[in-house]
Amino acid sequence: MVRMLTKSTIKFIKSLQEKKYRKQEQCFVVEGAKSVEEVLNADFEVMMLVGSSEFLRSVKHIPENTEVFESKASEMSSMGDFQTNDAALAVVRMKPKSEPRIEPSGFTLLLDDIRDPGNLGTIIRTADWYGITTILASEETVDFYSPKVINSTKGSFIRVNFMYADLPVILSQQSLPIYGALLEGTDVHKVRFKESGILVIGNESRGISPAVEKFVTERITIPRFGKAESLNAAIATAIILDNIKR
Amino acid sequence: MVRMLTKSTIKFIKSLQEKKYRKQEQCFVVEGAKSVEEVLNADFEVMMLVGSSEFLRSVKHIPENTEVFESKASEMSSMGDFQTNDAALAVVRMKPKSEPRIEPSGFTLLLDDIRDPGNLGTIIRTADWYGITTILASEETVDFYSPKVINSTKGSFIRVNFMYADLPVILSQQSLPIYGALLEGTDVHKVRFKESGILVIGNESRGISPAVEKFVTERITIPRFGKAESLNAAIATAIILDNIKR
Repeated sequence: MVRMLTKSTIKFIKSLQEKKYRKQEQCFVVEGAKSVEEVLNADFEVMMLVGSSEFLRSVKHIPENTEVFESKASEMSSMGDFQTNDAALAVVRMKPKSEPRIEPSGFTLLLDDIRDPGNLGTIIRTADWYGITTILASEETVDFYSPKVINSTKGSFIRVNFMYADLPVILSQQSLPIYGALLEGTDVHKVRFKESGILVIGNESRGISPAVEKFVTERITIPRFGKAESLNAAIATAIILDNIKR
Repeated sequence: MVRMLTKSTIKFIKSLQEKKYRKQEQCFVVEGAKSVEEVLNADFEVMMLVGSSEFLRSVKHIPENTEVFESKASEMSSMGDFQTNDAALAVVRMKPKSEPRIEPSGFTLLLDDIRDPGNLGTIIRTADWYGITTILASEETVDFYSPKVINSTKGSFIRVNFMYADLPVILSQQSLPIYGALLEGTDVHKVRFKESGILVIGNESRGISPAVEKFVTERITIPRFGKAESLNAAIATAIILDNIKR
């Protein structure tokens, strides 16, 4: 049954822009036709689906327990982070938190205090491209469920296992090589990466924190050919992953 | 002489958030202590310098013709794109437009319709890291002087020659190899890049336009190991530049 949105439902969805309410309600917002379609077909519980009449007609699969609402573009844009959203929006249940773990084979990505939501989303999307699906982040890292993070993953949030963890505690129990992106280390073009390991990426301005850095066993650096002082954290992640996988 | 800001000056600076007024006044805004300090020491005409009393005391070089204003953090944040700016802001004269040109040796970067200002800024910063300082962009590309672009270059806007150009016209006159980032091409890990060339990066969702693509002589692709559908345009640029330079 398709209904029209009420004021209180609109207010509820808007409240999910804030971390406090997402935590309280244990749900988050997914925006745009493509991501909404993907999440409907994924292993997520979609509590509410809001869509244009056209989107709702076209969508193939709507789970039985999903509340469905028809809405206009302007209304959908007002509820989310997209400047314009003329198709769809979903309210999705967060998955239960799982125990942080390091993949015994392949690479695990560790994020030490990434603050910018666009950076975090882009890192998740890039990790998914390179086949890395286990990501651990320090508690200070920006909220995974923030709309800007979810939007900039371009659907990759569905495929990664993202866990917050006390990084020094986790790292103290590892025997895998721990690669850290640092200013003074081995040229990434010359590193012979092992088959399995951990890659640590630090904060946008302060880099890897001392408490985490002391566990790094292989310091790696992206060589600079020009004059920029630093690289964006998502860019650095991508370049290192490309070097690991080549 | 340090003065206090008047309402009309605040209004003028705020107006530079809009492309129309930047074009009319031929100037743009630079935010934050680090970038403002850099632009004061670079080959740019700084028309106005707005700073906290602390910043103004610490700054080493203020050109004679620069109007100097003391201001508070809240006032500076209201005039720019930064959420908080507790240090400095500058109004800077645009450089005269130069004739678009391709570097005869080394690499030139061509951007075919990059729309997101954060992407453009990050691409400029990354190019500067890899020593590429000549960048040509299609006329539809987002405005170089937009505050979000300038801010996300992290000062690299000072060092690059950025020119808007009719890309097909420029490309039709070249004999250098023209590498294009495309979905179906040679694995970037296997391409033997020439010493000099042109790298073309396309739009975030549509890729390289057909009018530009027909000039591409070497189609290159970043191999995918996971499931993400695509990479962010700035990420793709970085990975290809890293492969060119290694």
